[in-house]
Amino acid sequence: MLYEINEKALKLEAEGKKIIRLNLGDPDLETPPEIVEAAYQAMKAGKTKYSSAYGENKLRVKLAEVHDVKPENVVITPGSKWGVFATMYLMLKGGGNVIIPTPYWTAYELIAKSIGAKVKLLRTELENDWKIDPAELEALIDKETKMIILNNPNNPTSKVIDDKTLDGIVEIANKKGITILSDEVYGTIAFTKTKSILDYNGGCKHILSNGFSKTFTMTGWRIGYIIADKLLVDNITKLNQITINNVPVFIQEAALKGLELRKQIANAIKKEYKERADMACKILSKDGLSFTKPEAPFYVFPKHPGLDSEKFTLDLLDKGVAVAPGTSFGDYREHFRISLTAPRPKIKTSLNIICEALK
Amino acid sequence: MLYEINEKALKLEAEGKKIIRLNLGDPDLETPPEIVEAAYQAMKAGKTKYSSAYGENKLRVKLAEVHDVKPENVVITPGSKWGVFATMYLMLKGGGNVIIPTPYWTAYELIAKSIGAKVKLLRTELENDWKIDPAELEALIDKETKMIILNNPNNPTSKVIDDKTLDGIVEIANKKGITILSDEVYGTIAFTKTKSILDYNGGCKHILSNGFSKTFTMTGWRIGYIIADKLLVDNITKLNQITINNVPVFIQEAALKGLELRKQIANAIKKEYKERADMACKILSKDGLSFTKPEAPFYVFPKHPGLDSEKFTLDLLDKGVAVAPGTSFGDYREHFRISLTAPRPKIKTSLNIICEALK
Repeated sequence: MLYEINEKALKLEAEGKKIIRLNLGDPDLETPPEIVEAAYQAMKAGKTKYSSAYGENKLRVKLAEVHDVKPENVVITPGSKWGVFATMYLMLKGGGNVIIPTPYWTAYELIAKSIGAKVKLLRTELENDWKIDPAELEALIDKETKMIILNNPNNPTSKVIDDKTLDGIVEIANKKGITILSDEVYGTIAFTKTKSILDYNGGCKHILSNGFSKTFTMTGWRIGYIIADKLLVDNITKLNQITINNVPVFIQEAALKGLELRKQIANAIKKEYKERADMACKILSKDGLSFTKPEAPFYVFPKHPGLDSEKFTLDLLDKGVAVAPGTSFGDYREHFRISLTAPRPKIKTSLNIICEALK
Repeated sequence: MLYEINEKALKLEAEGKKIIRLNLGDPDLETPPEIVEAAYQAMKAGKTKYSSAYGENKLRVKLAEVHDVKPENVVITPGSKWGVFATMYLMLKGGGNVIIPTPYWTAYELIAKSIGAKVKLLRTELENDWKIDPAELEALIDKETKMIILNNPNNPTSKVIDDKTLDGIVEIANKKGITILSDEVYGTIAFTKTKSILDYNGGCKHILSNGFSKTFTMTGWRIGYIIADKLLVDNITKLNQITINNVPVFIQEAALKGLELRKQIANAIKKEYKERADMACKILSKDGLSFTKPEAPFYVFPKHPGLDSEKFTLDLLDKGVAVAPGTSFGDYREHFRISLTAPRPKIKTSLNIICEALK
C-alpha cells in the first residue's frame, strides 16, 4: 500500500489538489548548498568516468575513520537500499530464511520474496514499548536461518533498541552463528545515543548498512554504504561490477563534502526534527492516540483501536493529507505512520485534520 | 581478466608509470558542458529528492518519441548494465538457459552465473566475418531456453549484424517463442545504418537495452534504459523500488539535455571515432594482423595466430599500453581488444608498441 498511496497522492497533485505529503521518509529540507557545489565542481573537473566498483578510495578512507574500521571493510552503494539488497542477495539466494522484527521497513520483506528467501517475522508491540524479546528471537532461529535484520533506530516507530536488548540479540546471534544486518540509516541523527552493531566483536563480524540520504538530506542522490568483513565487501563489489558498476564519482565527492561538515549538518537536522516531534506528540496526545515518543527522525506510528488503516489512509488523502497505513509495515492494521517531513505549520494543520478524521 | 588488467593498470599508474589506457570502453572525451550545466541547474532547483522508480515522465516521453514506442514501454535504469541485469534476473531467476553469441561482453555471462542461469554459447569467428548462423542458433534452443542476448553493434568486434541475419534470428526466436534482449548501446553512433530489434513485430515483443554512456560520453553518470512490453517495464520498476529506487533526477535532466542535442553530439562522436578507426586499421594492417573493420565505436579485435593473449596483455602493460585479452570475451585466446579511447597521437604510439611486441 505504501507505493499505491504515493501514486494516488501524485495523481491528486497532478489534478491540482493540494496534498500535505507525510507518507514518505523524504525530508522537505534542501540538500545543503555546499554539497551541491562539491558535485558541480567534480563534474566540471571531469569526474564523470567509470570508476571503482568499491567506491572512491578517499571516501572509503573517510568512512573507515568515522566508523573506526579499515577502508577494506567499506563499499559504496547507490543508496543504502542497494546495500541491503546486495547483502541479502549474496547471503540468501542459495536458500535459507531471514528473521525480521516487525514493524519493519517494507523493502526487507519484498527483497526476501524477490530473492526467494523465507521470512520469519518477530512481532513487537506498542504496549511492550516495541521491545524485541531475545528469548522469542532465539526460539525463531532454526538450521536454515542465515540472517537477522535490525533497523535501529526503527522505521516506522522511531524507537532505538536499548543497550541491554541489543547485547542480548548479539549474544544469541553469535552463539548460533547467525549474521546480523543492522540498518542504521537514522543512527547519526537519533535524538538519544544509540549503540551500533559495529560496537560489538571488533567491528565487522556483523554488517552495517548506512547512507547519506537522511543525515545529509540527500535522498534523491542515491548513495549509501556497507561496512562488513572484507570477503562480503569484495563480493558486493563483484556484484556492483555486473549491475550498477559504480556510484557516480561526482556524487561520491558530494557525499565526502557532507561528511566533512557532518557535525554541523547533523545537529541542525536533529534540532529541527526534535522540535517537530515534540510538537506532534503534544497534538496527538490530546486526542487519546497511543504511541511511543520518537527517539529519532522522522516518524510517529500511532495506534487507534479499531482502525482500518488502509481505508483511513485512502479517505485521508481526499482530505488533503497523505500518511502511510500500518499494514505497510507488517500486521499493524490499527496503526498509521506519520512522516514529519514538512514545515511545522503544515504538520500542525495535517495533525488537526488527522485527529478530526479519527473522531 | 578484464578487471584484473584494469586494476594492474591503475596500480602501475599509482606508482607513477605512464599507461596508455586502451582497455576499457570509457571514452577519453569529456561529457558535453551543456549536459553538466543541465545537471547543476536541476540540483540547484532542488531535484534531489526520491522520485519515480519508472524514471521521470518527461524523459520517458522523449525516449518513446525517439524510439517510436509508448512512454509506458520505457523504464530508466542506473546504466544499461542494470537494465540487462534486471531483465535477466526477472526472466531467469526461476531457472532456464540463455543463448549468448561469442565474442561477448563479459557481463552477460557473469550475470547469468550470479543468477544461477545456464549459458549456451554460440560461437562466431573472424574468418566468417563474425556472422551468427541462424541454423546453429536454432539447434542450440531447447525447452529450457528463455532468452537470446544480442549485442548489436558488438563489443568487442564493433561489427553490426546485417539485416538478413537479424531477420533470420528474429524469425527463429518468434517461431520458438524466445525473447531477444538486444543490447544496442553502440547503435546510435554506429558508422553504418543498423536495424534495431524495435523494428520488428511492432516494437516491444522483444527487449531493447540502451544507455547514454557511449553516445553522450556519460559513462560515469550511470544512466540507461530498457524498452519492452508494459509487463516487463512494470516488473523492472518493482525491482527498482527494492534496489536502486530511482536514478537521481538531476542526472535524468542531464540525459534529457543530451537527447535534445543528440544529432550534433552523436555526429561529432561518430566522426572522431571513424577517423581513429581508419587510422588504426591502416597501422594494424601493415603488420599482418587479421581483423574486421569496425562498423561502430570503440573497438578493434585483432587476431594474431598462436598468441597467448593473457600473457601478451600483461607483458604489454609493462611496456605502457593497456588492452584487453581475447579471453575476456569468450574462448578467443589469439585475439585482443583495443579500445580507441585516447587521442589519435596516443593511439598511434600504442599501436606501434603493440605491433613491435607482436614481432
